[in-house]
Amino acid sequence: MVTTRKIIDKYNSYTPGKSITEIAEKYGVDPETIIKLGSNENPFGASPKAIKAITENINSINRYPESNHELIKEAIGEYAQVSSENIIVCGDGADEVIDVLAKTFMNPGDEFIVHAPTYMYYEYIFKAYNLKRVAARWDVEENKLDTQSVLDNITSKTKMIFLCTPNNPTGGLIPQEEIEKIVKSTDALVVIDEAYWEFSEVNNINLLDKYDNIFILRTFSKVMGLAGLRIGYGISNKDLIEKMSRIKPVFSLTVPSQLAVLATLNDKEYIEKSTKQGIKEREYLYEEINKIDNLKIYPSKSNYLLIDLHNSSYTAAQLALELMKKGVIVRDCTSFAGIDEYYIRISIATHPENERFIKILKELVE
Amino acid sequence: MVTTRKIIDKYNSYTPGKSITEIAEKYGVDPETIIKLGSNENPFGASPKAIKAITENINSINRYPESNHELIKEAIGEYAQVSSENIIVCGDGADEVIDVLAKTFMNPGDEFIVHAPTYMYYEYIFKAYNLKRVAARWDVEENKLDTQSVLDNITSKTKMIFLCTPNNPTGGLIPQEEIEKIVKSTDALVVIDEAYWEFSEVNNINLLDKYDNIFILRTFSKVMGLAGLRIGYGISNKDLIEKMSRIKPVFSLTVPSQLAVLATLNDKEYIEKSTKQGIKEREYLYEEINKIDNLKIYPSKSNYLLIDLHNSSYTAAQLALELMKKGVIVRDCTSFAGIDEYYIRISIATHPENERFIKILKELVE
Repeated sequence: MVTTRKIIDKYNSYTPGKSITEIAEKYGVDPETIIKLGSNENPFGASPKAIKAITENINSINRYPESNHELIKEAIGEYAQVSSENIIVCGDGADEVIDVLAKTFMNPGDEFIVHAPTYMYYEYIFKAYNLKRVAARWDVEENKLDTQSVLDNITSKTKMIFLCTPNNPTGGLIPQEEIEKIVKSTDALVVIDEAYWEFSEVNNINLLDKYDNIFILRTFSKVMGLAGLRIGYGISNKDLIEKMSRIKPVFSLTVPSQLAVLATLNDKEYIEKSTKQGIKEREYLYEEINKIDNLKIYPSKSNYLLIDLHNSSYTAAQLALELMKKGVIVRDCTSFAGIDEYYIRISIATHPENERFIKILKELVE
Repeated sequence: MVTTRKIIDKYNSYTPGKSITEIAEKYGVDPETIIKLGSNENPFGASPKAIKAITENINSINRYPESNHELIKEAIGEYAQVSSENIIVCGDGADEVIDVLAKTFMNPGDEFIVHAPTYMYYEYIFKAYNLKRVAARWDVEENKLDTQSVLDNITSKTKMIFLCTPNNPTGGLIPQEEIEKIVKSTDALVVIDEAYWEFSEVNNINLLDKYDNIFILRTFSKVMGLAGLRIGYGISNKDLIEKMSRIKPVFSLTVPSQLAVLATLNDKEYIEKSTKQGIKEREYLYEEINKIDNLKIYPSKSNYLLIDLHNSSYTAAQLALELMKKGVIVRDCTSFAGIDEYYIRISIATHPENERFIKILKELVE
């Protein structure tokens, strides 16, 4: 009999998620009117230049993608204000970059530190490599990293530390001086996840010149509006990038994804507009929900907001279900380590959608 | 200092490949006229239905892909004549399926058997997991698997055996009775790579009912004409597919890729035409090259052909360079384990391109 690895038993049995069509059918809502607040996407659509580049070159999809990402790395380098030699580009969004980090740096038994709550996929991917997750603490009430809890957990076995800023799902930032305290205390690689940095208008690129153990993780799925094309990238020193490039998948970035990267980065107006509108809608949602007495909303520097339901009559699962029945998809945060079953996360939609959502939410919780 | 894994030193230093534009510029050829025989692609283009499906739905690329592949698995199941529960779909072509095979089944130190020469990516991916490659032999002269060399290498540590049929780069088939001899002799998972099966008009789906240690690997990059969208799939028993589904990347199949799978499988005429034209052009190339005295060409059941240059005045590198100068890209097979530096692989192009290629080839070698 074919035996699987023991680690497979620690992964949940696969239960396929429901598609939008299935949800719409089940709850009798028009799929066209569903408000998607569950996945931190860009609700304003992709750059028209990206769409044009793909459709104009669609006849090339029978050919393998270029494995040489030189033009793409140059364009990203210009955007991030680093050299193209500091860039690695991957084809399943930031998730593939995380996998390449494991393959390049982590031996079985090595430890990695990750604060909770945060993005769950670091752990999901790293688990496959028989690595030991050590939990640090994100102070949800204050919406800030408990830096000391990271420092206290650093040992000689610590090989990587994940810091998510703005943090998913809470929206809080990690101040750069806190990041530096951690970076200085270890030889481990400190991975700063800046998937949502544009919405916070600050980043940590300047640290690359000061320290050689920093890796910045980014994506085209958020402000760049290309979640469906699965594009991620990383920024670090030339030596580490070269090492990672040896072991990374060669062809994982599809032809349309490559075209879309170049066209989107060439559309400065789109990036600026996406950022500004995102921030504006986030502030609108914050202000409106802040007025609702029995909900607590946390200030956010990202394109999503965390809502505490303890003072409402709902668990996250209950409220998510009631919202779903009215055509609104939100993220029930129960599965995030480090918080209980009374939190949902909402990301921004277009202004008319956000207005509709606020109305529906008030009807349910007030 | 951040330390990388020892295995990284066994991967070649990353040297970016040249793009078509760079090649065209360097050798002064028009990029539009370059004949691409290097990558075993479908030269006739993608299905018009696939292209239409993508362009009509291009506005959805700002949204994450569905992680639920139910419709896709049903369509592939119908094509492969198995149930959707026997299917796993991945997002970086067959290469990602190979990675998921490692993550699901292979512990550090486990052995896998792979014949040489064959597709090099099994080893490239498996190396990252600290696994031991055990080499079996493909008899190049006879263009057939040395089955005994596989059987002789099976030990208690053998966890996986790769069999590529039609074999890349030689084009020979492994008869089903040879596969069965191997499958019966082991509890290891036997991975039958059928990336090119359509061109051979036979497959091994019928073995799935007889044995529980079979995994069939396939791709949409060849006859399906979608190399640029990176779609791979695997077929096995329900239990192993469920285990693999737990650990596989959730969102790696892009939105355009998902649309293209459904539309292509719905275009039976396209698939039939791609297959027939592919076979016809392969036979044309075989017959023409077989007439050239100082080249030896091997009969092939795939969309590519192996050429032995020992009796010519060229090494593979030299001939590949001379062809490149005339705008023809072929595959220098020197990097394939198990053959020396005197083999090139050519894949089919359109008929006018194949005619031009034969003319150029004759000018060089006759």
